[in-house]
Amino acid sequence: MTRKLYSLCGADRTRPFSPHVWKTAMSLAHKQLDFDTVPLGFTEIPAVEDGATRLVPLLRDGERLVKDSFDIALYLEEAYPERPPLFAGEGAKGIARFVEGWSQTTLHPAITRIIIRDIHERLEPVDQAYFRQSREKRFGTSLEAVAESGAAALESLSEKLEPLRHMLKSQAFLGGMSPLFTDYIVFGAFQWARIVSPQRLLQSGDPVADWFARCLDLHDGLGRSVTAA
Amino acid sequence: MTRKLYSLCGADRTRPFSPHVWKTAMSLAHKQLDFDTVPLGFTEIPAVEDGATRLVPLLRDGERLVKDSFDIALYLEEAYPERPPLFAGEGAKGIARFVEGWSQTTLHPAITRIIIRDIHERLEPVDQAYFRQSREKRFGTSLEAVAESGAAALESLSEKLEPLRHMLKSQAFLGGMSPLFTDYIVFGAFQWARIVSPQRLLQSGDPVADWFARCLDLHDGLGRSVTAA
Repeated sequence: MTRKLYSLCGADRTRPFSPHVWKTAMSLAHKQLDFDTVPLGFTEIPAVEDGATRLVPLLRDGERLVKDSFDIALYLEEAYPERPPLFAGEGAKGIARFVEGWSQTTLHPAITRIIIRDIHERLEPVDQAYFRQSREKRFGTSLEAVAESGAAALESLSEKLEPLRHMLKSQAFLGGMSPLFTDYIVFGAFQWARIVSPQRLLQSGDPVADWFARCLDLHDGLGRSVTAA
Repeated sequence: MTRKLYSLCGADRTRPFSPHVWKTAMSLAHKQLDFDTVPLGFTEIPAVEDGATRLVPLLRDGERLVKDSFDIALYLEEAYPERPPLFAGEGAKGIARFVEGWSQTTLHPAITRIIIRDIHERLEPVDQAYFRQSREKRFGTSLEAVAESGAAALESLSEKLEPLRHMLKSQAFLGGMSPLFTDYIVFGAFQWARIVSPQRLLQSGDPVADWFARCLDLHDGLGRSVTAA
Protein backbone atom coordinates (compact mmCIF):
# COMPACT_ATOMS: atom_id res chain seq x y z
CA MET A 1 0.00 0.00 0.00
CA THR A 2 1.32 3.45 -0.83
CA ARG A 3 -0.72 5.33 1.76
CA LYS A 4 1.07 5.80 5.08
CA LEU A 5 -0.05 7.70 8.15
CA TYR A 6 2.85 8.66 10.41
CA SER A 7 1.53 8.50 13.93
CA LEU A 8 2.64 9.13 17.52
CA CYS A 9 3.09 6.47 20.20
CA GLY A 10 4.72 5.86 23.54
CA ALA A 11 6.63 2.75 24.62
CA ASP A 12 3.67 0.63 23.45
CA ARG A 13 3.66 1.03 19.67
CA THR A 14 0.17 -0.45 19.35
CA ARG A 15 -1.45 2.50 21.16
CA PRO A 16 -1.23 5.63 18.97
CA PHE A 17 -2.55 8.54 21.03
CA SER A 18 -2.02 11.86 19.25
CA PRO A 19 -5.32 13.76 19.05
CA HIS A 20 -4.28 15.25 15.73
CA VAL A 21 -3.38 11.89 14.21
CA TRP A 22 -6.74 10.52 15.33
CA LYS A 23 -8.42 13.34 13.40
CA THR A 24 -6.62 12.12 10.30
CA ALA A 25 -7.22 8.41 10.92
CA MET A 26 -10.94 9.15 11.19
CA SER A 27 -10.79 11.37 8.09
CA LEU A 28 -9.17 8.60 6.04
CA ALA A 29 -11.72 6.04 7.26
CA HIS A 30 -14.52 8.52 6.49
CA LYS A 31 -13.20 8.72 2.93
CA GLN A 32 -13.02 4.90 2.88
CA LEU A 33 -9.30 5.04 2.14
CA ASP A 34 -6.96 2.28 3.35
CA PHE A 35 -3.75 3.24 5.09
CA ASP A 36 -0.88 1.79 7.06
CA THR A 37 -0.02 3.42 10.36
CA VAL A 38 3.65 4.09 11.08
CA PRO A 39 4.01 4.64 14.83
CA LEU A 40 6.78 6.97 15.96
CA GLY A 41 8.09 8.26 19.26
CA PHE A 42 8.28 12.06 19.57
CA THR A 43 12.02 12.09 18.85
CA GLU A 44 11.75 9.83 15.81
CA ILE A 45 9.44 12.16 13.90
CA PRO A 46 12.09 14.53 12.46
CA ALA A 47 13.92 11.58 10.85
CA VAL A 48 11.15 10.33 8.55
CA GLU A 49 10.49 11.40 4.94
CA ASP A 50 13.73 13.38 4.70
CA GLY A 51 12.84 15.59 7.66
CA ALA A 52 9.46 16.61 6.26
CA THR A 53 8.01 17.53 9.64
CA ARG A 54 8.57 17.81 13.37
CA LEU A 55 4.91 17.11 14.08
CA VAL A 56 2.45 14.38 13.16
CA PRO A 57 0.16 13.60 11.46
CA LEU A 58 2.12 13.31 8.25
CA LEU A 59 0.38 11.57 5.37
CA ARG A 60 2.19 9.91 2.48
CA ASP A 61 -0.37 9.36 -0.28
CA GLY A 62 1.49 8.02 -3.29
CA GLU A 63 3.54 10.93 -4.57
CA ARG A 64 1.95 13.42 -2.19
CA LEU A 65 3.18 14.23 1.29
CA VAL A 66 0.82 16.34 3.43
CA LYS A 67 1.14 17.44 7.04
CA ASP A 68 -1.26 19.03 9.56
CA SER A 69 -4.61 17.39 10.25
CA PHE A 70 -6.65 20.30 8.87
CA ASP A 71 -4.59 20.57 5.69
CA ILE A 72 -4.82 16.81 5.25
CA ALA A 73 -8.62 16.98 5.52
CA LEU A 74 -8.71 19.75 2.90
CA TYR A 75 -6.38 17.69 0.69
CA LEU A 76 -8.54 14.56 1.02
CA GLU A 77 -11.68 16.53 0.20
CA GLU A 78 -10.07 17.85 -2.97
CA ALA A 79 -8.29 14.65 -4.02
CA TYR A 80 -11.27 12.33 -3.38
CA PRO A 81 -14.37 14.41 -4.17
CA GLU A 82 -16.41 11.33 -5.09
CA ARG A 83 -15.99 9.87 -1.57
CA PRO A 84 -18.17 10.90 1.43
CA PRO A 85 -17.56 14.59 2.15
CA LEU A 86 -15.49 15.71 5.15
CA PHE A 87 -16.81 19.28 4.97
CA ALA A 88 -19.94 19.19 2.77
CA GLY A 89 -19.54 22.59 1.20
CA GLU A 90 -17.26 25.61 1.23
CA GLY A 91 -18.96 27.21 4.22
CA ALA A 92 -18.02 24.35 6.49
CA LYS A 93 -14.33 24.77 5.66
CA GLY A 94 -14.34 28.24 7.16
CA ILE A 95 -16.44 27.40 10.20
CA ALA A 96 -14.34 24.29 10.88
CA ARG A 97 -11.43 26.63 11.66
CA PHE A 98 -13.50 28.04 14.49
CA VAL A 99 -14.19 24.54 15.83
CA GLU A 100 -10.45 23.86 15.62
CA GLY A 101 -9.86 27.10 17.49
CA TRP A 102 -12.30 26.12 20.21
CA SER A 103 -10.76 22.66 20.55
CA GLN A 104 -7.19 23.98 20.61
CA THR A 105 -7.73 26.86 23.00
CA THR A 106 -10.43 25.47 25.30
CA LEU A 107 -10.23 21.67 25.34
CA HIS A 108 -6.55 20.97 24.72
CA PRO A 109 -5.06 23.15 27.49
CA ALA A 110 -7.51 21.65 29.99
CA ILE A 111 -7.01 18.06 28.86
CA THR A 112 -3.24 18.47 28.77
CA ARG A 113 -3.29 19.51 32.43
CA ILE A 114 -5.49 16.53 33.30
CA ILE A 115 -3.46 13.84 31.50
CA ILE A 116 0.09 15.22 31.31
CA ARG A 117 1.40 12.81 33.92
CA ASP A 118 -0.30 9.85 32.21
CA ILE A 119 1.27 10.79 28.89
CA HIS A 120 4.72 11.19 30.42
CA GLU A 121 4.55 7.77 32.09
CA ARG A 122 3.79 6.04 28.80
CA LEU A 123 6.75 7.41 26.86
CA GLU A 124 10.20 5.92 26.21
CA PRO A 125 12.88 7.67 28.32
CA VAL A 126 14.29 9.59 25.33
CA ASP A 127 10.81 10.90 24.53
CA GLN A 128 10.13 11.70 28.18
CA ALA A 129 13.05 14.13 28.12
CA TYR A 130 11.73 15.81 24.94
CA PHE A 131 8.18 15.90 26.27
CA ARG A 132 9.19 17.42 29.59
CA GLN A 133 11.31 20.11 27.97
CA SER A 134 8.77 21.12 25.30
CA ARG A 135 5.76 21.15 27.67
CA GLU A 136 7.62 22.97 30.44
CA LYS A 137 8.52 25.62 27.87
CA ARG A 138 4.90 25.85 26.66
CA PHE A 139 3.40 26.14 30.14
CA GLY A 140 6.25 28.13 31.65
CA THR A 141 6.41 25.85 34.67
CA SER A 142 7.44 22.33 35.69
CA LEU A 143 5.61 19.28 34.41
CA GLU A 144 4.74 18.46 38.01
CA ALA A 145 3.17 21.89 38.52
CA VAL A 146 1.11 21.47 35.34
CA ALA A 147 -0.02 18.05 36.58
CA GLU A 148 -1.01 19.53 39.95
CA SER A 149 -3.46 21.83 38.14
CA GLY A 150 -5.09 18.78 36.58
CA ALA A 151 -7.63 18.16 39.33
CA ALA A 152 -9.03 21.69 38.99
CA ALA A 153 -9.00 21.39 35.20
CA LEU A 154 -10.96 18.14 35.43
CA GLU A 155 -13.49 19.71 37.75
CA SER A 156 -14.14 22.64 35.42
CA LEU A 157 -14.05 20.64 32.17
CA SER A 158 -17.75 19.83 32.13
CA GLU A 159 -18.88 23.46 31.98
CA LYS A 160 -16.57 24.07 29.01
CA LEU A 161 -18.62 21.52 27.05
CA GLU A 162 -21.84 23.56 27.08
CA PRO A 163 -21.47 24.61 23.41
CA LEU A 164 -21.51 20.92 22.46
CA ARG A 165 -24.56 20.21 24.61
CA HIS A 166 -26.44 23.10 23.03
CA MET A 167 -25.63 21.72 19.57
CA LEU A 168 -26.58 18.17 20.56
CA LYS A 169 -30.11 19.31 21.44
CA SER A 170 -30.68 19.80 17.70
CA GLN A 171 -28.64 17.04 16.12
CA ALA A 172 -26.50 13.92 16.59
CA PHE A 173 -23.19 15.26 15.29
CA LEU A 174 -21.38 18.57 14.79
CA GLY A 175 -21.85 17.89 11.10
CA GLY A 176 -25.61 17.58 11.57
CA MET A 177 -27.32 14.22 11.07
CA SER A 178 -24.00 12.58 10.20
CA PRO A 179 -20.38 13.28 11.18
CA LEU A 180 -17.98 15.59 9.40
CA PHE A 181 -14.34 16.55 9.96
CA THR A 182 -15.45 18.93 12.71
CA ASP A 183 -16.62 15.93 14.73
CA TYR A 184 -13.19 14.37 14.35
CA ILE A 185 -11.53 17.60 15.52
CA VAL A 186 -13.31 17.34 18.87
CA PHE A 187 -13.26 13.53 18.95
CA GLY A 188 -9.45 13.58 18.74
CA ALA A 189 -9.18 15.45 22.02
CA PHE A 190 -11.31 12.97 23.97
CA GLN A 191 -9.79 9.95 22.25
CA TRP A 192 -6.32 11.16 23.26
CA ALA A 193 -7.43 11.22 26.91
CA ARG A 194 -9.25 7.89 26.60
CA ILE A 195 -6.13 6.11 25.36
CA VAL A 196 -3.53 7.51 27.74
CA SER A 197 -5.43 8.09 30.97
CA PRO A 198 -7.69 6.05 33.26
CA GLN A 199 -9.34 9.29 34.40
CA ARG A 200 -12.93 9.74 33.24
CA LEU A 201 -13.45 13.04 31.49
CA LEU A 202 -17.08 12.40 30.53
CA GLN A 203 -19.79 11.15 32.86
CA SER A 204 -22.49 8.75 31.72
CA GLY A 205 -25.75 10.52 31.01
CA ASP A 206 -23.92 13.51 29.55
CA PRO A 207 -25.04 14.07 25.92
CA VAL A 208 -21.36 14.68 25.11
CA ALA A 209 -20.53 11.18 26.36
CA ASP A 210 -23.26 9.79 24.09
CA TRP A 211 -21.87 11.72 21.13
CA PHE A 212 -18.37 10.44 21.89
CA ALA A 213 -19.67 6.86 22.02
CA ARG A 214 -21.32 7.40 18.63
CA CYS A 215 -17.98 8.59 17.24
CA LEU A 216 -16.21 5.53 18.68
CA ASP A 217 -18.73 3.35 16.82
CA LEU A 218 -18.04 4.99 13.44
CA HIS A 219 -16.13 3.28 10.65
CA ASP A 220 -16.47 -0.23 12.09
CA GLY A 221 -15.45 0.97 15.53
CA LEU A 222 -12.08 2.37 14.44
CA GLY A 223 -11.80 4.43 17.62
CA ARG A 224 -12.33 1.31 19.75
CA SER A 225 -9.48 -0.53 17.97
CA VAL A 226 -7.34 0.89 20.77
CA THR A 227 -8.79 0.06 24.19
CA ALA A 228 -9.39 2.63 26.89
CA ALA A 229 -6.53 3.06 29.38
CA MET B 1 -43.49 46.17 1.43
CA THR B 2 -44.72 42.84 2.72
CA ARG B 3 -41.54 41.90 4.54
CA LYS B 4 -41.51 42.90 8.21
CA LEU B 5 -38.90 42.22 10.86
CA TYR B 6 -40.32 42.49 14.38
CA SER B 7 -37.53 43.85 16.52
CA LEU B 8 -36.77 44.75 20.14
CA CYS B 9 -36.20 48.26 21.46
CA GLY B 10 -36.14 50.25 24.66
CA ALA B 11 -37.62 53.71 25.20
CA ASP B 12 -35.76 54.92 22.10
CA ARG B 13 -37.48 53.14 19.22
CA THR B 14 -34.70 54.01 16.78
CA ARG B 15 -32.15 51.82 18.59
CA PRO B 16 -33.04 48.13 18.16
CA PHE B 17 -30.63 46.13 20.28
CA SER B 18 -31.60 42.46 20.39
CA PRO B 19 -28.59 40.30 19.42
CA HIS B 20 -30.92 37.77 17.82
CA VAL B 21 -32.74 40.36 15.74
CA TRP B 22 -29.40 41.71 14.54
CA LYS B 23 -28.54 38.22 13.32
CA THR B 24 -31.69 38.33 11.20
CA ALA B 25 -31.24 41.91 10.00
CA MET B 26 -27.77 40.97 8.76
CA SER B 27 -29.13 37.76 7.20
CA LEU B 28 -31.78 39.69 5.27
CA ALA B 29 -29.23 42.25 4.07
CA HIS B 30 -26.87 39.40 3.11
CA LYS B 31 -29.67 37.99 0.94
CA GLN B 32 -30.25 41.49 -0.46
CA LEU B 33 -33.85 41.46 0.73
CA ASP B 34 -35.59 44.68 1.72
CA PHE B 35 -37.52 44.78 4.98
CA ASP B 36 -39.28 47.16 7.35
CA THR B 37 -38.32 47.01 11.00
CA VAL B 38 -41.15 47.00 13.53
CA PRO B 39 -39.69 47.99 16.91
CA LEU B 40 -41.36 46.54 19.99
CA GLY B 41 -40.83 46.73 23.72
CA PHE B 42 -40.49 43.39 25.53
CA THR B 43 -44.09 43.47 26.70
CA GLU B 44 -45.50 44.36 23.28
CA ILE B 45 -44.13 41.26 21.58
CA PRO B 46 -46.90 38.79 22.56
CA ALA B 47 -49.54 41.04 21.01
CA VAL B 48 -48.31 41.06 17.41
CA GLU B 49 -49.32 38.66 14.63
CA ASP B 50 -52.08 37.05 16.70
CA GLY B 51 -49.71 36.05 19.47
CA ALA B 52 -47.27 34.25 17.16
CA THR B 53 -44.32 34.54 19.54
CA ARG B 54 -43.05 35.76 22.88
CA LEU B 55 -39.56 36.32 21.49
CA VAL B 56 -38.10 38.23 18.58
CA PRO B 57 -36.97 38.08 15.84
CA LEU B 58 -40.21 37.32 14.11
CA LEU B 59 -40.20 37.65 10.33
CA ARG B 60 -43.30 38.24 8.23
CA ASP B 61 -42.39 37.44 4.61
CA GLY B 62 -45.56 37.71 2.57
CA GLU B 63 -47.67 34.74 3.63
CA ARG B 64 -44.92 33.22 5.72
CA LEU B 65 -44.30 33.91 9.38
CA VAL B 66 -41.02 32.56 10.80
CA LYS B 67 -39.51 32.96 14.25
CA ASP B 68 -36.07 32.20 15.77
CA SER B 69 -32.95 33.67 14.11
CA PHE B 70 -31.52 30.26 13.19
CA ASP B 71 -34.78 29.00 11.70
CA ILE B 72 -35.15 32.26 9.80
CA ALA B 73 -31.66 31.83 8.32
CA LEU B 74 -32.54 28.29 7.25
CA TYR B 75 -35.81 29.57 5.78
CA LEU B 76 -34.09 32.35 3.83
CA GLU B 77 -31.51 29.93 2.49
CA GLU B 78 -34.25 27.64 1.20
CA ALA B 79 -36.61 30.37 -0.03
CA TYR B 80 -33.94 32.45 -1.79
CA PRO B 81 -31.38 29.92 -3.07
CA GLU B 82 -30.32 32.19 -5.94
CA ARG B 83 -29.19 34.91 -3.51
CA PRO B 84 -25.78 34.92 -1.72
CA PRO B 85 -25.61 31.87 0.55
CA LEU B 86 -25.92 32.19 4.33
CA PHE B 87 -24.50 28.72 4.94
CA ALA B 88 -22.77 27.65 1.70
CA GLY B 89 -23.51 23.97 1.93
CA GLU B 90 -25.21 21.43 4.16
CA GLY B 91 -22.16 20.92 6.37
CA ALA B 92 -22.22 24.51 7.53
CA LYS B 93 -25.81 24.18 8.76
CA GLY B 94 -24.75 21.56 11.26
CA ILE B 95 -21.59 23.29 12.40
CA ALA B 96 -23.41 26.62 12.73
CA ARG B 97 -25.38 25.06 15.60
CA PHE B 98 -22.10 24.64 17.44
CA VAL B 99 -21.21 28.30 16.85
CA GLU B 100 -24.66 29.22 18.16
CA GLY B 101 -23.99 27.01 21.16
CA TRP B 102 -20.67 28.71 21.83
CA SER B 103 -22.21 32.15 21.49
CA GLN B 104 -25.22 31.32 23.69
CA THR B 105 -23.32 29.55 26.46
CA THR B 106 -20.02 31.44 26.50
CA LEU B 107 -20.56 34.97 25.17
CA HIS B 108 -24.16 35.74 26.13
CA PRO B 109 -23.97 34.94 29.86
CA ALA B 110 -20.79 37.04 30.15
CA ILE B 111 -22.11 39.96 28.11
CA THR B 112 -25.44 39.91 29.95
CA ARG B 113 -23.59 40.36 33.25
CA ILE B 114 -21.54 43.20 31.77
CA ILE B 115 -24.44 45.17 30.26
CA ILE B 116 -27.50 44.19 32.28
CA ARG B 117 -27.67 47.54 34.07
CA ASP B 118 -27.28 49.43 30.77
CA ILE B 119 -30.12 47.44 29.20
CA HIS B 120 -32.40 48.00 32.18
CA GLU B 121 -31.80 51.76 32.12
CA ARG B 122 -32.85 52.03 28.49
CA LEU B 123 -36.22 50.32 28.84
CA GLU B 124 -39.70 51.77 29.37
CA PRO B 125 -40.90 51.24 32.96
CA VAL B 126 -43.33 48.47 31.97
CA ASP B 127 -40.53 46.61 30.21
CA GLN B 128 -38.15 47.21 33.11
CA ALA B 129 -40.50 45.24 35.33
CA TYR B 130 -40.65 42.37 32.84
CA PHE B 131 -36.90 42.42 32.29
CA ARG B 132 -36.09 42.38 35.99
CA GLN B 133 -38.44 39.52 36.71
CA SER B 134 -37.34 37.32 33.78
CA ARG B 135 -33.60 37.91 34.29
CA GLU B 136 -33.75 37.47 38.05
CA LYS B 137 -35.48 34.14 37.44
CA ARG B 138 -32.82 33.12 34.89
CA PHE B 139 -29.85 34.03 37.08
CA GLY B 140 -31.47 33.07 40.37
CA THR B 141 -30.43 36.34 41.98
CA SER B 142 -31.22 40.05 41.92
CA LEU B 143 -30.51 42.20 38.89
CA GLU B 144 -28.14 44.24 41.03
CA ALA B 145 -26.18 41.12 42.02
CA VAL B 146 -25.89 40.09 38.37
CA ALA B 147 -24.66 43.59 37.51
CA GLU B 148 -22.08 43.43 40.29
CA SER B 149 -20.53 40.39 38.61
CA GLY B 150 -20.13 42.43 35.43
CA ALA B 151 -16.67 43.78 36.20
CA ALA B 152 -15.25 40.30 36.63
CA ALA B 153 -17.08 39.12 33.50
CA LEU B 154 -15.57 42.00 31.52
CA GLU B 155 -12.11 41.19 32.80
CA SER B 156 -12.32 37.54 31.77
CA LEU B 157 -14.12 38.15 28.46
CA SER B 158 -10.97 38.51 26.38
CA GLU B 159 -9.68 35.02 27.13
CA LYS B 160 -13.03 33.55 26.09
CA LEU B 161 -12.40 34.91 22.58
CA GLU B 162 -9.35 32.74 21.88
CA PRO B 163 -11.28 30.40 19.53
CA LEU B 164 -12.05 33.44 17.34
CA ARG B 165 -8.42 34.61 17.36
CA HIS B 166 -7.23 31.15 16.34
CA MET B 167 -9.69 31.19 13.43
CA LEU B 168 -8.74 34.74 12.41
CA LYS B 169 -5.12 33.67 11.91
CA SER B 170 -6.31 31.75 8.84
CA GLN B 171 -9.12 33.88 7.47
CA ALA B 172 -11.09 37.13 7.65
CA PHE B 173 -14.49 35.73 8.67
CA LEU B 174 -15.98 32.68 10.37
CA GLY B 175 -17.34 31.83 6.94
CA GLY B 176 -13.83 31.92 5.46
CA MET B 177 -12.90 34.66 2.99
CA SER B 178 -16.39 36.16 3.22
CA PRO B 179 -19.06 36.25 5.94
CA LEU B 180 -21.78 33.67 6.52
CA PHE B 181 -24.62 33.37 9.02
CA THR B 182 -22.12 32.13 11.62
CA ASP B 183 -20.46 35.55 11.54
CA TYR B 184 -23.81 37.17 12.23
CA ILE B 185 -24.39 34.82 15.18
CA VAL B 186 -21.30 36.16 16.93
CA PHE B 187 -21.68 39.69 15.56
CA GLY B 188 -25.12 39.95 17.17
CA ALA B 189 -23.64 39.51 20.64
CA PHE B 190 -21.11 42.32 20.25
CA GLN B 191 -23.56 44.59 18.43
CA TRP B 192 -26.01 44.21 21.32
CA ALA B 193 -23.33 45.43 23.74
CA ARG B 194 -22.21 48.20 21.36
CA ILE B 195 -25.72 49.66 21.15
CA VAL B 196 -26.75 49.53 24.79
CA SER B 197 -23.51 50.05 26.69
CA PRO B 198 -20.67 52.58 26.69
CA GLN B 199 -18.36 49.91 28.08
CA ARG B 200 -15.71 48.69 25.66
CA LEU B 201 -15.74 44.93 25.29
CA LEU B 202 -13.05 44.78 22.59
CA GLN B 203 -9.70 46.55 22.70
CA SER B 204 -8.10 48.08 19.62
CA GLY B 205 -5.38 45.85 18.21
CA ASP B 206 -7.37 42.72 19.04
CA PRO B 207 -8.01 40.72 15.83
CA VAL B 208 -11.56 40.21 17.14
CA ALA B 209 -12.07 43.98 17.18
CA ASP B 210 -10.86 44.13 13.57
CA TRP B 211 -13.27 41.35 12.59
CA PHE B 212 -16.14 43.17 14.35
CA ALA B 213 -15.28 46.37 12.46
CA ARG B 214 -15.35 44.41 9.19
CA CYS B 215 -18.80 43.11 10.11
CA LEU B 216 -20.01 46.64 10.90
CA ASP B 217 -18.88 47.68 7.40
CA LEU B 218 -20.90 44.95 5.67
CA HIS B 219 -24.06 45.65 3.67
CA ASP B 220 -23.43 49.38 3.32
CA GLY B 221 -22.61 49.70 7.00
CA LEU B 222 -25.94 48.34 8.22
CA GLY B 223 -24.50 47.67 11.67
CA ARG B 224 -23.35 51.31 11.93
CA SER B 225 -26.86 52.59 11.15
CA VAL B 226 -27.30 52.58 14.93
CA THR B 227 -24.52 54.50 16.66
CA ALA B 228 -22.47 53.13 19.52
CA ALA B 229 -23.78 53.96 22.99
